[in-house]
Amino acid sequence: MTVIKLEVMQPPFQTRREFIKNSTITAASLPLLGAFSTTAFAADADRKLGFALVGLGSLSTNQIAPALQKTKYCRLAGIVTGHPAKAEVWKAKYNIPDKNIYNYDTMGQMADNPDIDVVYVVTPNALHAEHTIKAATAGKHVLSEKPMEVSVEKCRQMIDACQKANRQLAVGYRLHFEPNNLECVRLAREKVFGDVKMIQAGFGFRSGDPKQWRLDRALSGGGPLMDVGIYALQATRYLTGEEPVQVSAVASTTDPVKFKDIEDCITWQLKFPSGILANCSSTYRSNGLNHYTAFAENGWFGLGPAYDYSGINGRRSDGKAITFAPIDQFTAEMDDFAQCILNNQPTKVSGEEGRRDIKIMMAIYEAAKTGKTLSLA
Amino acid sequence: MTVIKLEVMQPPFQTRREFIKNSTITAASLPLLGAFSTTAFAADADRKLGFALVGLGSLSTNQIAPALQKTKYCRLAGIVTGHPAKAEVWKAKYNIPDKNIYNYDTMGQMADNPDIDVVYVVTPNALHAEHTIKAATAGKHVLSEKPMEVSVEKCRQMIDACQKANRQLAVGYRLHFEPNNLECVRLAREKVFGDVKMIQAGFGFRSGDPKQWRLDRALSGGGPLMDVGIYALQATRYLTGEEPVQVSAVASTTDPVKFKDIEDCITWQLKFPSGILANCSSTYRSNGLNHYTAFAENGWFGLGPAYDYSGINGRRSDGKAITFAPIDQFTAEMDDFAQCILNNQPTKVSGEEGRRDIKIMMAIYEAAKTGKTLSLA
Repeated sequence: MTVIKLEVMQPPFQTRREFIKNSTITAASLPLLGAFSTTAFAADADRKLGFALVGLGSLSTNQIAPALQKTKYCRLAGIVTGHPAKAEVWKAKYNIPDKNIYNYDTMGQMADNPDIDVVYVVTPNALHAEHTIKAATAGKHVLSEKPMEVSVEKCRQMIDACQKANRQLAVGYRLHFEPNNLECVRLAREKVFGDVKMIQAGFGFRSGDPKQWRLDRALSGGGPLMDVGIYALQATRYLTGEEPVQVSAVASTTDPVKFKDIEDCITWQLKFPSGILANCSSTYRSNGLNHYTAFAENGWFGLGPAYDYSGINGRRSDGKAITFAPIDQFTAEMDDFAQCILNNQPTKVSGEEGRRDIKIMMAIYEAAKTGKTLSLA
Repeated sequence: MTVIKLEVMQPPFQTRREFIKNSTITAASLPLLGAFSTTAFAADADRKLGFALVGLGSLSTNQIAPALQKTKYCRLAGIVTGHPAKAEVWKAKYNIPDKNIYNYDTMGQMADNPDIDVVYVVTPNALHAEHTIKAATAGKHVLSEKPMEVSVEKCRQMIDACQKANRQLAVGYRLHFEPNNLECVRLAREKVFGDVKMIQAGFGFRSGDPKQWRLDRALSGGGPLMDVGIYALQATRYLTGEEPVQVSAVASTTDPVKFKDIEDCITWQLKFPSGILANCSSTYRSNGLNHYTAFAENGWFGLGPAYDYSGINGRRSDGKAITFAPIDQFTAEMDDFAQCILNNQPTKVSGEEGRRDIKIMMAIYEAAKTGKTLSLA
């Protein structure tokens, strides 16, 4: 069996309490989960960290900018865009001063701009390293959208750049702050239904515009696995609290005209150290694949939809529903990162966490390409 | 990629009408599906074929014998058992004459017994060939429980023995007669939601008695894959109407004390010629895994529970439920086989169909063992 070296890292969270201890926002949103250690907020609680958004596409426009308005510890301070017309719209809408508006060539100049504390990189996957490194070099903390990048090496460069600049790096894993997902982590880790034995997880949708960057491997790094399959992969990791030791995969491109150089359907299987098997799917060809279920010794539980911005809910084998009220996940994610920065605490959605997913996804692609089950040692 | 030769066979059914044309019972049970060709019943409709059950375990006792009482074209004529005490109970309960009661050594003598037309083999998996060959050699038609056997070679011997004796051979794939499953076949084949692109399917349960033959590889041929995973495999084949061309698998034994020489969890992935990917799971460690969902271009549909004796129902992405009234699947299966025999028509659940599953399951085990994706050519 081919062995790919995957440095064994501390799992991102080991227990429910560890999972949420840095997330005061989430804790406050989860009264049903019981008592928490309520980490004191930053002494400088009045200070709102200035965020600059890099890349003003749909996600920034429809999710992140509105979410920023609801944060407690953040504010939309600046933008980086290659489109002057977009800059004008955002400037007017969010009252952004000219001095805080950059393009990709000038963004390094934000080193001199104290308004901007954090750069949120929302550009195509293969540009995350470039923009993260520019931001870190300019002395800014960085929140990068997922997937972190398109290769392990580029993830490493991002981590190194932030370490060198003594700045924090986080990856936009919003579901680490979502209460229904947190509840499933609790059910798994506290063994409410006994040991989890198998997990099924899938996330896909029917991809629209054939000209979008996500269908261009050079920018996306791959197909639905990179875009949404990563959520299913993440789920298997945060449910188990383990790192996979074995991976096999099968990929398919059922519409090679539209999906020229990426898969449009992919399945992969993971074996975890405890023997838990996870069976995952992702697709750009069909809507409705949006779930996970954990099968444990004494029952099962899961979510469906599991990964949406809102409407997440689930079921348990004892008939109980999993229906925590939705929160704005981006608001929670950004406030948590701001708290980590203000309190000088590590983020649970670190660059290392992002790099680990990229490593596994590259192994999934390698397994699909070579037809070999890969050992992740 | 390692290539395993899988003779390409005519898919078991190509269209809804083909799927059910030999199944008058099912057709009659499916008024909502619309108009059917109502194959004329046998001219000799008064004749009920005499069935002998080989192996009087739980399945024969609780499902098959009661189902036989409800058949139109069959009757419980005889039994084969190694337990004289069981023979006494059955003899009294079902009024079986002494001359129709055999043990495994004497069952060849049924060649002289015109009461027995069909032998239904309900013994442990690794004994199906022995009992099938004895029955065929005695001039009887044979219905074998699934999985057909524990090796492709033994399946071949069963097929050859029945062909040589000019007797029909069927495998107990009861879901080929179950209306909710038939409806899903129709939804897939008639492309009601467009082309199916991905399928998720799983069947498992928490295995009880550690002394049962199913946990003994010599008798079972394997773990949950052989016992119940076969239903998920079957589902992917009858939904697609295609034969898989590629298989990868990962297996795990999380309780090696109880499950000494078999897997207790397994996942496998199939690629079909059209590019459809199927992602399947089976386990002996958890209840609740009992479903399939087909993800198509314009929606999805599936069943859960999908494989039970009753209570099967499902959902569609358009909000409609799939809720055909339950039938006794064993009654339908046996009456269908009787009709095939009486009308000299081929059964849709043939020995070849059974052999194909065994071939694929052996490839699944090989893929799991070697860590190689196997090509089924």
